[in-house]
Amino acid sequence: MSQPPAHARDELAHSLLDHLECSATGETFPADGLRNLSPAGEPLLPRYRLGPHVPRPPHRGPGGMWRYAALLPHRGTVVTLGEGWTPLLPAPRLGAQLGLPLLWVKDESQNPTASFKARGIATAVTMAKALGVIRLAIPTAGHAGGALAAYGARAGIAVEVFMPRDTPEAFQLEARLHGAQVHLVDGLISECGKLVAAGAAQGRWFDCSTFKEPYRVEGKKTMGYELWEQMGGQLPDAILYPTGGGTGLIGMWKAFEELAQLGWHTGQRPRMVAVQVAGCAPVVRAFQEGAARTRFWDEATTLAYGLRVPKPLADALILRALRESAGTAVAVAELEMLAGMHELAASEGISSGPETGAVVAAAAQLARAGWLTPQQTVVLFNTGSQTKYPDAARAALQRAHAP
Amino acid sequence: MSQPPAHARDELAHSLLDHLECSATGETFPADGLRNLSPAGEPLLPRYRLGPHVPRPPHRGPGGMWRYAALLPHRGTVVTLGEGWTPLLPAPRLGAQLGLPLLWVKDESQNPTASFKARGIATAVTMAKALGVIRLAIPTAGHAGGALAAYGARAGIAVEVFMPRDTPEAFQLEARLHGAQVHLVDGLISECGKLVAAGAAQGRWFDCSTFKEPYRVEGKKTMGYELWEQMGGQLPDAILYPTGGGTGLIGMWKAFEELAQLGWHTGQRPRMVAVQVAGCAPVVRAFQEGAARTRFWDEATTLAYGLRVPKPLADALILRALRESAGTAVAVAELEMLAGMHELAASEGISSGPETGAVVAAAAQLARAGWLTPQQTVVLFNTGSQTKYPDAARAALQRAHAP
Repeated sequence: MSQPPAHARDELAHSLLDHLECSATGETFPADGLRNLSPAGEPLLPRYRLGPHVPRPPHRGPGGMWRYAALLPHRGTVVTLGEGWTPLLPAPRLGAQLGLPLLWVKDESQNPTASFKARGIATAVTMAKALGVIRLAIPTAGHAGGALAAYGARAGIAVEVFMPRDTPEAFQLEARLHGAQVHLVDGLISECGKLVAAGAAQGRWFDCSTFKEPYRVEGKKTMGYELWEQMGGQLPDAILYPTGGGTGLIGMWKAFEELAQLGWHTGQRPRMVAVQVAGCAPVVRAFQEGAARTRFWDEATTLAYGLRVPKPLADALILRALRESAGTAVAVAELEMLAGMHELAASEGISSGPETGAVVAAAAQLARAGWLTPQQTVVLFNTGSQTKYPDAARAALQRAHAP
Repeated sequence: MSQPPAHARDELAHSLLDHLECSATGETFPADGLRNLSPAGEPLLPRYRLGPHVPRPPHRGPGGMWRYAALLPHRGTVVTLGEGWTPLLPAPRLGAQLGLPLLWVKDESQNPTASFKARGIATAVTMAKALGVIRLAIPTAGHAGGALAAYGARAGIAVEVFMPRDTPEAFQLEARLHGAQVHLVDGLISECGKLVAAGAAQGRWFDCSTFKEPYRVEGKKTMGYELWEQMGGQLPDAILYPTGGGTGLIGMWKAFEELAQLGWHTGQRPRMVAVQVAGCAPVVRAFQEGAARTRFWDEATTLAYGLRVPKPLADALILRALRESAGTAVAVAELEMLAGMHELAASEGISSGPETGAVVAAAAQLARAGWLTPQQTVVLFNTGSQTKYPDAARAALQRAHAP
């Protein structure tokens, strides 16, 4: 047979993308070319022609997150590795331990490249390809660099990845196997970001940093749409999300706003919880201080490399989502995080990185404090697989066997 | 909200499982208790009440491979981590290089525990749980042990994993984090198998070895059903599959037979290709010799740990499927395998283990020989992610940069 598979024949819905909007000033810009930050130096957010005229997502469309193609940026073709539509798994055993019987885990580790980063990188590379980009660069704590390398290879776009020198080898190997140029940097992701910005200013590549690139958040927002659809048109009471750059948290909050604009979900929205670790908790500090932005976190240190972001660029949007949703921000101790990672694996069979371990520990903390209650439906995000973090796995096992 | 998500409310189809049949003698046995091999010492195959009365799979059923629940073993509840319904990805760039423009990759690395093993272990643990098993043991090259540890944790069943001492640490860490007892064995998977069999004979656990356990093949067969459905009710001309224990190859061949019995697909079936490596190729040798069974492969050695199976238990079924399908068996050199793994990652953005690299190399070999032609639709199986094989990744990169 020579006919393409069914899912390739399924028509991709036309994108309703209309324009880009500065997240700080509201100023609008056409979505017709390459853009990074707004003139105000703030993230741009894509806006769509939304309303009750938009049909609900099809049940026979393309697979994965592209079932929401109308609400995503693209120009008729997409760069995809099958990302999205990850399972929402009940977690009854862990839930019983935590006193949260209605506990669920959204398992993003089952994405291509084994993490949630695949979603945002898929939309970013789809638009980069459509707009003629030939070289992309990214600062990364690990997962995003691997994902950009993979999707760049898929699209035929050259990729340069900048990561801290102490990033686990697994992330380096992954990016290099996909043909990316890997630069090991003395410093954290913030230093990497400066090098990428400098090269972009010289015209060497397009800067694909979190929120300097306006479309990554769009892929991430599909996590919110999927929760709504997988829960039968409802939303949970609370969402706990490991927060480094915060794209997923902001993206889901944007999805819930869009669901309301579409008339698909007009009820209560979830309380959003940003989870960080004691060794790097700029969002928690700013939230507790009542500040609108974070301050740089000095000497950030944790095995949860994805949370080692000393000052997220979109901190204002993160903090706004937490406050608008009546949510909160929680930092957990490094050892609690490792215990949480172990607990999720041992009680539910779900493999995760340490970032997710922090979320498990945060759920326990919030349940003890009564902030989460047994009547509430709670969703934890597992943002990536354990397999790229052998050092965290070893530490978790050692902790468990310590006298 | 306290209602369970939509997919949990979707009704699981009643299983049409009828009995077990000895794959060598045809003798039948009730499917009502724990069984390993038949009295003839051969694998048992589950048989169902199939016919045109069976409705086609629903488009609003449970997610993943359980959309085929009627054709799978279960007793009304399943042990699941969301396995199956993995993407079937076009591979146009790699296809152009190989002269196979209709090339596809079925990406099993997007399963829970990052490999195809999740499918078979899900059905095995589902039945073990239904039949009251409290401890399972398995000999493994790596992936299956990690998967059994995860699904055992999910089900609340204790797990003992036996793996060769030189298995990459990633597999050990994975199994231990899921709470399994890991035994490192001086020897190959065949030695591990003997230890598991001895403990089972003493009543210490149920033996979950490939094909000694009759339900693993059922999960694996869903790869065949999915190909058929994802290709819009058609099947490819050829399937290339990395063959260690051979469960997937046998399972898919069984699925195609069942599709015919169901009247869902009565046309041509794919040619099945077993791919092995030069360092351990018992199936290729037996196929070339015209033998009905394999002989033990001495001093098996390869970085593709999943292919380091010196004598597959179900060799007769593997060889029968190859011959009935007018297929073939191909061994590739270790360096070609590493190059294939690198090529797939760099040209298509698909992360794979070395076993899949062997499949890429075999496709190139068969295309050069004219056994595969540009008019044919060819599916390569990516059985697992690269992330658990840092040594193979390092070797592939070194090879590429060698002078």
